[in-house]
Amino acid sequence: MPDAEIIAVGSELLTPQRLDTNSLYLTDQLNALGVEVVRKTVVGDDRERLVDTIRGAMARSQIVVLTGGLGPTEDDLTRDAVADALGRSLEFSRILCDQLEERFRRFGRKMAEINKRQAYLVSGAEPLANDRGTAPGQWIEQDGVALMLLPGPPSELKPMFERECLPRLEKRLPPQVIRLRQLRCVGIPESDLDQLISPVYKQYPTLATTILAVSGEIHVHLRARSARAEDAEEVVEEAFGRIDALLGDRVYSRNGDSLEKVVGDLLRARHAKLSVAESITGGLLGGRITAVPSASDFFLGGFQTYSNEMKTRLLGVADELIADHSAVSEPVAKAMAAGAKARTGSDYALSLTGYAGPEGAQVGLVFVGLASPEGVEARRVQLPGDRERIRIFSTNTALDLLRRKLAAEISSAA
Amino acid sequence: MPDAEIIAVGSELLTPQRLDTNSLYLTDQLNALGVEVVRKTVVGDDRERLVDTIRGAMARSQIVVLTGGLGPTEDDLTRDAVADALGRSLEFSRILCDQLEERFRRFGRKMAEINKRQAYLVSGAEPLANDRGTAPGQWIEQDGVALMLLPGPPSELKPMFERECLPRLEKRLPPQVIRLRQLRCVGIPESDLDQLISPVYKQYPTLATTILAVSGEIHVHLRARSARAEDAEEVVEEAFGRIDALLGDRVYSRNGDSLEKVVGDLLRARHAKLSVAESITGGLLGGRITAVPSASDFFLGGFQTYSNEMKTRLLGVADELIADHSAVSEPVAKAMAAGAKARTGSDYALSLTGYAGPEGAQVGLVFVGLASPEGVEARRVQLPGDRERIRIFSTNTALDLLRRKLAAEISSAA
Repeated sequence: MPDAEIIAVGSELLTPQRLDTNSLYLTDQLNALGVEVVRKTVVGDDRERLVDTIRGAMARSQIVVLTGGLGPTEDDLTRDAVADALGRSLEFSRILCDQLEERFRRFGRKMAEINKRQAYLVSGAEPLANDRGTAPGQWIEQDGVALMLLPGPPSELKPMFERECLPRLEKRLPPQVIRLRQLRCVGIPESDLDQLISPVYKQYPTLATTILAVSGEIHVHLRARSARAEDAEEVVEEAFGRIDALLGDRVYSRNGDSLEKVVGDLLRARHAKLSVAESITGGLLGGRITAVPSASDFFLGGFQTYSNEMKTRLLGVADELIADHSAVSEPVAKAMAAGAKARTGSDYALSLTGYAGPEGAQVGLVFVGLASPEGVEARRVQLPGDRERIRIFSTNTALDLLRRKLAAEISSAA
Repeated sequence: MPDAEIIAVGSELLTPQRLDTNSLYLTDQLNALGVEVVRKTVVGDDRERLVDTIRGAMARSQIVVLTGGLGPTEDDLTRDAVADALGRSLEFSRILCDQLEERFRRFGRKMAEINKRQAYLVSGAEPLANDRGTAPGQWIEQDGVALMLLPGPPSELKPMFERECLPRLEKRLPPQVIRLRQLRCVGIPESDLDQLISPVYKQYPTLATTILAVSGEIHVHLRARSARAEDAEEVVEEAFGRIDALLGDRVYSRNGDSLEKVVGDLLRARHAKLSVAESITGGLLGGRITAVPSASDFFLGGFQTYSNEMKTRLLGVADELIADHSAVSEPVAKAMAAGAKARTGSDYALSLTGYAGPEGAQVGLVFVGLASPEGVEARRVQLPGDRERIRIFSTNTALDLLRRKLAAEISSAA
């Protein structure tokens, strides 16, 4: 099996503030093909050093992935450095240039002269289409090495890798079957989850198990690899079934769907509408729910009641309730949810109130309210981390409370 | 000034879950000495590849920092690889071994035989004391290159670097000063910005300029370096002043503050309160504004009016206005902003309505409304990218519209 190296290009990645995170995604993708990443390099916008790095990688590894440095400016040197390293020239592509101009036109802008730099291809390279940005990628084969030039922004790199590079790589690699399953959980710490499921996954020597903590959620990836599809499938399905049973109702997704997508689908299935009332999160919960395409099928809207006055004015939370219990309390969370439900006419309403810090003795204390056709309930949680984490975890807690409610209703109705 | 390279050793750093973060700390420390990090490499526990990486780094750079691979197990290969790369032997140190045994005794444990591996020094190396763990570091000078072997755990690496490496580096380096400035802009594409300012920054050979596109914003970093503080300062300040003048009111921050922080500070300075009415963004704008600590000083709250009915019910947007112009229109954006201002009693209100896709002919069309004490205005933009980008860029557009409004009021009042 060939080895891979990843080279991230950009002086900003050599500052104390920035890390190359694209390599994590690329490593995951390459590993899934059975390819190991044996070296990762970050190099600045320096043509000579970049040429030297590319030559070194090509001498050692059969797959070389370059990310970044494909922009239109003078310090975007990847194209030039690759041409130098391979002893090839850069050639202007009329077709690419027309596509770039067309892209600018579509957004009602005129292409700057400087963007023409992005229409140059290393001689003999295949262009890789970029739906999300102006920088086309490039695919080059030389001396048994496959070299990929990909744009730096993850939103451009990922779709390009999946659509353009994966099929080309699969053609080059010996047939290997990989079977994947995943589970996503919320509401359990990573170490507790690992302690629970590691006795299972350790029993399968051909199974690669990855546990990822992502914004307060835990994603478990299971990957079995074999020359025969049946073998890979049997291993991954058996392990998946056992782990799924251990995790129980903590699992919100078995197909990679996001928590907001799962909640949206549950609401849509019962033709129910949701509204929100957000204090601590200021709108993040609604922002997350509406990240799902066609969210209007199940989301009406809501209220960002950051000040106490707004809780009273927009949601009808009684002044005395706030005075007696404080704005961060179970009664206020319930009153906020009830108010949002009544004022929007939704079937369900979620509310969030809490202390996000950074100052204060009770930072991390959050109440979630849930109004449903059966009544109003609330949950109290103490969340770890800084302001940003507390606010994101708050939205997890709210969405998961609603998910469990909807799932319980469906299973009790069945 | 010598350049530095950082080599992180460890196969776990080549998995999809792990990043080498020590390099950020080391870069910060080295930059403060005036040393630029020109390359970072991550390499697995593979002796041959590691030897090759060390040789390459020593051929190019005068400071080489190796992190990790100093543990007691078979896959801890840094000592062996450095000895190979330098053509030196490993020598057992009785003193180090005694110190290790003493350390184990202090914690009431007996040292395992395997830990003796940590008592080997590359011939001619100076040991670097480790107060926090068992792995001693090593300092080696050869062919004008200073090579440091540091332990991987940050809690061991950081004190060792500060106590043992910094004094040794300072002795080797000429005194140097670095001066930094930055500008942040919104509302101008990266390529247009570069075309505008590159004629200026290219005039300063001692100035390093980095242009970063981050979520629809552009950050410009200027860094000047010199033996004399006054010289570095003069260069960076002159370039900063000229670039600032060229970019004009597109610059929202000159100190690294986020756009929401800048808008919050402008509101706070005039004791003004803001509210929002969000359709396309579903709460992201309020979520972003409340990311700023103490946002309650200037943010009251708002309305997530995702459905047309909510625009009418919560904001008082007339049914006929939506029927005549569609929900994504200038009149509706204005009515939403006016409604939010009236119903919250805020001084300013921002509204957002648009098409985020993925389906539809007008994806990317967004209207921002702004209600202020002087009246209501709106702006139409056509935004590029996918659903996520369109929604984030929408919040940029809204915040920047308010920023310009507030800045103009302040300057016209002055």
